[in-house]
Amino acid sequence: MTSEELVRTFMSRVWNSGDLAAVDQFVASQYTIHSDPGDPWDGQTLDRDTFRQRLLTSRAAFPDLSFGIEDAVCSPERVAIAWTMRGTNTAPMGGRPATGSRVEARGITIYYCDKGYVTGHRQVVDRLTVVRQMGLAG
Amino acid sequence: MTSEELVRTFMSRVWNSGDLAAVDQFVASQYTIHSDPGDPWDGQTLDRDTFRQRLLTSRAAFPDLSFGIEDAVCSPERVAIAWTMRGTNTAPMGGRPATGSRVEARGITIYYCDKGYVTGHRQVVDRLTVVRQMGLAG
Repeated sequence: MTSEELVRTFMSRVWNSGDLAAVDQFVASQYTIHSDPGDPWDGQTLDRDTFRQRLLTSRAAFPDLSFGIEDAVCSPERVAIAWTMRGTNTAPMGGRPATGSRVEARGITIYYCDKGYVTGHRQVVDRLTVVRQMGLAG
Repeated sequence: MTSEELVRTFMSRVWNSGDLAAVDQFVASQYTIHSDPGDPWDGQTLDRDTFRQRLLTSRAAFPDLSFGIEDAVCSPERVAIAWTMRGTNTAPMGGRPATGSRVEARGITIYYCDKGYVTGHRQVVDRLTVVRQMGLAG
């Protein structure tokens, strides 16, 4: 599997389907979030259980969360993807009640790959659009 | 010059030094902004004079604007870079008076390259950090 196939399958199975068991298959035992402004785990290295926690937390607030990949730049050990995230905030998040808002926002992520696993990422999300669509103050 | 060298030199000469003459050397005659949420030229194709206008507009508001590249993913026709932008808002921007704020925010850009020129980009900037650091409402 090329790094591009790995990342596309990881996005489909882990993030779009929320398949917790697939984490063992695609995510390295140590997963480093090199940079992800606003993410509660920014700068941390996660084991697989903590990765599942992060996945569950995100998908609990937006149960229909999905990422559509719009473009990719691929090298053997890094894959950058530009995506649009769509989801409906139907459950509380970060101590805030559910807003019922439909969110559609863009982001770009660089995924790091090694030996058939995703080992971490560096990401920027258009959070200003997210807070505006959710009716929250910037 | 590889696509990576092209993009790194373009960032240094055009964006960090603000060299208007260098636009002819590095920027294609038609430059397409495929996606750049919040950018006034999002979705447009710019000729070189319009590109210079965009460069001048950005650097007028932040005369010390600079981008530090933290990582890159390179393929022959696409280069993704993760960067940190730093600058001080010492002149009016978008109808707002200068705030004097020092801004430091992260972004990721995919640059498209063809025949030795940069032909466009797709970008996400952590605008929420920018508006917060400038004391503006989200």
